[in-house]
Amino acid sequence: MKEIISMKNTMVKEIKKLRIKKHREAQERYLIEGFHLIEEAIQANAEVEWVLLSQRGLEEWSEWISEQEDDRFIFVTEEILTSLSDLPTPQGMLAVVKMPKTEETLSYSGRWLLLDNVQDPGNVGTMIRTADAVGMTGVILGEGCSDIYSTKVLRAMQGSNYHLPIVRHPLAEAVEQFKQNNVPVYGTELNKAAVSYQELPKKEAYALIMGNEGQGVSAELLSLVDHSVYIPIIGEAESLNVAIAAGVLMYHLLPF
Amino acid sequence: MKEIISMKNTMVKEIKKLRIKKHREAQERYLIEGFHLIEEAIQANAEVEWVLLSQRGLEEWSEWISEQEDDRFIFVTEEILTSLSDLPTPQGMLAVVKMPKTEETLSYSGRWLLLDNVQDPGNVGTMIRTADAVGMTGVILGEGCSDIYSTKVLRAMQGSNYHLPIVRHPLAEAVEQFKQNNVPVYGTELNKAAVSYQELPKKEAYALIMGNEGQGVSAELLSLVDHSVYIPIIGEAESLNVAIAAGVLMYHLLPF
Repeated sequence: MKEIISMKNTMVKEIKKLRIKKHREAQERYLIEGFHLIEEAIQANAEVEWVLLSQRGLEEWSEWISEQEDDRFIFVTEEILTSLSDLPTPQGMLAVVKMPKTEETLSYSGRWLLLDNVQDPGNVGTMIRTADAVGMTGVILGEGCSDIYSTKVLRAMQGSNYHLPIVRHPLAEAVEQFKQNNVPVYGTELNKAAVSYQELPKKEAYALIMGNEGQGVSAELLSLVDHSVYIPIIGEAESLNVAIAAGVLMYHLLPF
Repeated sequence: MKEIISMKNTMVKEIKKLRIKKHREAQERYLIEGFHLIEEAIQANAEVEWVLLSQRGLEEWSEWISEQEDDRFIFVTEEILTSLSDLPTPQGMLAVVKMPKTEETLSYSGRWLLLDNVQDPGNVGTMIRTADAVGMTGVILGEGCSDIYSTKVLRAMQGSNYHLPIVRHPLAEAVEQFKQNNVPVYGTELNKAAVSYQELPKKEAYALIMGNEGQGVSAELLSLVDHSVYIPIIGEAESLNVAIAAGVLMYHLLPF
């Protein structure tokens, strides 16, 4: 196994930059942390470039490591690993993964989740994980959404980015395409003049738009949708967390 | 309005300690941050002891502040406010609130959410916010749950702690009480031998147990419940986030 023991190593410096979006885009790579995500990436045949292991990681996953016979493994000091991690207690294992080169294609059929300006990384990641669980066809990210290659989104996705297509695309354009294909488009609103989700029929194909944490779905997009939908609030809460709302809606709309 | 301009002020030092659970419990007070939460606390007649405002906060909410005629307001420097905040961009407004003295009483009737060893503050807070939205009777926190007076839980709850009872109580004992009162108790499991939630009838009264992020509900509690329930996973995700699962279940079980 290769070894890096100097904090000044050029590769270490380049990898550290991957914590910043601009550098991820320039290097076309991202960082994932912890055994679970790395195992998911390898199983999904993602282009894992390097797996960095500290003594702690080597000891904890020795059996799995020996099964891999992998020349992408590099031993690093705990100091290096900690400097690359953004966890309070690093897990001893980090990987550098190349971003997929081919843009996923949009089919405009099936069940799609559309995210409009969702800013919290935990919300973006959790909604993608839920979309995966519900067997959605894919996820479309419009303007203003959190970068899916940030460590917080990657952690919340739990590997779901390897399971379903996630496409960046202007939402207004996508909505028009769905409508042309007779796929109903639902926007979510707090407005009680909207239709309660309980009245929506279960659907084999639909596009569901979830919006920004504070402002909701943009007025422009809401003017394009087939139905504005709301989830009734029975108690005193002003609203639901957007990821919770998305989960309730996607499970309700399941066609079986 | 009173003024504090020294970082060495004793009151500032005491308030800073409230970021640590041990000190919150000793002082029987907690910190909330930002206009929205403070407004919720005042509206709910929580015992707001002090509201600290920096120049920024004074300017942003001047109208609201002038309407309050409140001698609990204290002007502090931006430096002091920033030192007390745990946000990257402090909002210029913090409040010290006394913990409620009287323990909420448990009714063992109606709809209850029980949290077993849920450790992530965002998950605990979001589930309490959702329980509020669904109009649950209350929430019971068992062993190992994140402290609801930590700033992260308070932020995720969005004031729902002022809307419904949140009680610390041993869950095994609570489950026995619910059963004695003929209130069905549901535990959540990934096990497909469990009942799919879609088969559960809507209920006026039930207790729903959600478990730890990694381990789920403890085996001991699962052995006591009336039904183990699971949410079908259609895609490749291994599991749902616990707060998403709780949202799907509570909305499904709504009796209307």
